[in-house]
Amino acid sequence: MIKPVGSTELKPRFVYDPDRHHALMHEAESLPSITISSQAAGNAVMLGGGYFTPLTGYMTVADAVSVAETMRTTDGLFFPVPIMCLVPDVAAIGDARRIALRDPNMEGEPVLAVMDIETIETVTDEQMQLLTERVYGTLDAEHPGVAAFNGQGRTALSGSIEVLHFSYFQDDFPDTFRTAVEIRNEIAERGWQRVVAFQTRNPMHLAHEELCHMAMERLECDGLVIHMLLGKLKPGDIPAPVRDAAIRKMVELYFPPNSAMVTGYGFDMLYAGPREAVLHAYFRQNMGATHFIIGRDHAGVGDYYGPFDAQTIFDKQVPEGALDIEIFKADHTAYSKKLKKVVMMREAPDHSKEDFVLLSGTKVREMLGQGIAPPPEFSRPEVAQILMDYYQSLK
Amino acid sequence: MIKPVGSTELKPRFVYDPDRHHALMHEAESLPSITISSQAAGNAVMLGGGYFTPLTGYMTVADAVSVAETMRTTDGLFFPVPIMCLVPDVAAIGDARRIALRDPNMEGEPVLAVMDIETIETVTDEQMQLLTERVYGTLDAEHPGVAAFNGQGRTALSGSIEVLHFSYFQDDFPDTFRTAVEIRNEIAERGWQRVVAFQTRNPMHLAHEELCHMAMERLECDGLVIHMLLGKLKPGDIPAPVRDAAIRKMVELYFPPNSAMVTGYGFDMLYAGPREAVLHAYFRQNMGATHFIIGRDHAGVGDYYGPFDAQTIFDKQVPEGALDIEIFKADHTAYSKKLKKVVMMREAPDHSKEDFVLLSGTKVREMLGQGIAPPPEFSRPEVAQILMDYYQSLK
Repeated sequence: MIKPVGSTELKPRFVYDPDRHHALMHEAESLPSITISSQAAGNAVMLGGGYFTPLTGYMTVADAVSVAETMRTTDGLFFPVPIMCLVPDVAAIGDARRIALRDPNMEGEPVLAVMDIETIETVTDEQMQLLTERVYGTLDAEHPGVAAFNGQGRTALSGSIEVLHFSYFQDDFPDTFRTAVEIRNEIAERGWQRVVAFQTRNPMHLAHEELCHMAMERLECDGLVIHMLLGKLKPGDIPAPVRDAAIRKMVELYFPPNSAMVTGYGFDMLYAGPREAVLHAYFRQNMGATHFIIGRDHAGVGDYYGPFDAQTIFDKQVPEGALDIEIFKADHTAYSKKLKKVVMMREAPDHSKEDFVLLSGTKVREMLGQGIAPPPEFSRPEVAQILMDYYQSLK
Repeated sequence: MIKPVGSTELKPRFVYDPDRHHALMHEAESLPSITISSQAAGNAVMLGGGYFTPLTGYMTVADAVSVAETMRTTDGLFFPVPIMCLVPDVAAIGDARRIALRDPNMEGEPVLAVMDIETIETVTDEQMQLLTERVYGTLDAEHPGVAAFNGQGRTALSGSIEVLHFSYFQDDFPDTFRTAVEIRNEIAERGWQRVVAFQTRNPMHLAHEELCHMAMERLECDGLVIHMLLGKLKPGDIPAPVRDAAIRKMVELYFPPNSAMVTGYGFDMLYAGPREAVLHAYFRQNMGATHFIIGRDHAGVGDYYGPFDAQTIFDKQVPEGALDIEIFKADHTAYSKKLKKVVMMREAPDHSKEDFVLLSGTKVREMLGQGIAPPPEFSRPEVAQILMDYYQSLK
């Protein structure tokens, strides 16, 4: 099986030994504690599940700056983006060096992790700008990732953590949330040798399904991991159980036995485009995937990134040999009326927009809400039915 | 896929919709609440995960008595054992009819479920005796199941519940705990048609491994679900991560690709022997298994049950047609020095005890602790190594 990044074995920071887990939960009650940002909590969940192996915790400012500039820590460890714990102030913890981190995303802010503080540093304006500019490619405060990053505070806590809880992801998505440990275990059990991962957070229509089939065929993969970004829903989002049911139905009907698994991980989108694409590839290698699909404007938002920047970064900026996982460079896929099948758009240079069956997200939601199934060239009827049932139930 | 018991689809009582989950968590804070027994909490976790489909909650005393006597509720619904919520008193909830149930097994006793109370009844001495005698086959207060059952209190709360948490099982066993929903999903993804389940709570030595191979071969199964009873460890128990690693290593090395999965469920042992065997079969059907291995003195303790009572109950007492899952009636297995392979002991009638490689649990622990691997006729060397490493680490 493919090795984790920079390590011969996965190093999840979750405390798996129940005795030690109980002891730490108990200890945490009497430790000074601080409520961390949603981003820092997401980092803790990813560290807990082994996705960020071999990192053991949050980076120092020097490491964060070095990673932003070169994708390597000051010690030369490859990592795609800074993993930081930024807080507005540290009044709550005084001069404690061992503290509990509280979860901002759960009622009552329960303890998420115990941390041994290595440094407490103030991030200067210049450093914040450098970090922002290098990671997000812009300083525009309207960029949602930039806004979230800069909204956290300027005090950086660094040090290793031991994770005690997977935040709200296990409660909200008990049947879908998976650690990198679990996915590696299951890939081993299934006996897959070449495994391609697909990132999504939405139900999959025909174009997405065919993209996965295409990747599996061309890469000669025996396994597909559909790996959903799980997170808080926004008004209008399809609830997780409906989304999952739609994807599972697609797998059941349109994928051969033992060729696909439906899973999810707990993290917030950064919208960092190319840099986030590298992070996405990084943690897919850690969960045991040998290949990862990156499409047009992967992890992008608005017009901040060029359509294929998230692909070319792997050739231009990722250090040689840093990653073993291979990238499947994709474009949008759509049903061609001429060829009567789903094709990758850049592989049909003679096509104009009108030659494809394209529907906007708004249009699709409108149709489903009216109980009209999108055409079979767009949506599998069984998948459309699940989504229509949901929209109809809202009335 | 095999249908759940008494239902065309699984009916997990966990609240999967995140919005509704949050709303109920919020509501629960202002509801009168009561801390329930460990047994009632285990029932809630099983109801939550769909294992007890189509039950929606705790039984009335009349239903419990009827189930104890006939394995059917007063409405004729088949169920192997009473599923009750017995508490010492209901002072904490006054005359409320909608209450929160608190988890006795987690620090701070967080809310486990919300309940709509149907009845609050006092169980008479005669009823307690009848329930105990029918389910456990004895009234002996030294029987651990009887002691636990009778230690709960005499006030029975009945009514349906909505489950909000899977207790400590997700925190303590995040990579192994599975709901019936998850296992069904994974069986479907893997494309297994005939699936045999194996109950364990310990590392598996060669005899257990070969029993599973034997069952798969004779039943022509394409899948094995190793389904561990997860629960609080007793002093001297092997920690869950070590046990799991030993079992996963066995699967990796000695089972073909896509033929076995390693999973667990959260419940306390009842030690109810035959009746518990029927319950075990019941919830294995609900998780999608078509066959279930029942060995000698399954779920027994001491000398309370005959060695094969847990098998014959399926012919004698389980109503015809109540279960679709089929029982693989096994005996102890052990390596035969004569035949040079693992055999089922009752299938080697010419053998005496000395013809088998048998080691007591105490002896095996002693050897492993001294860094001596048990003979390969008893333990796979790679499995023994993991256990030895653990015992050596204790020194």
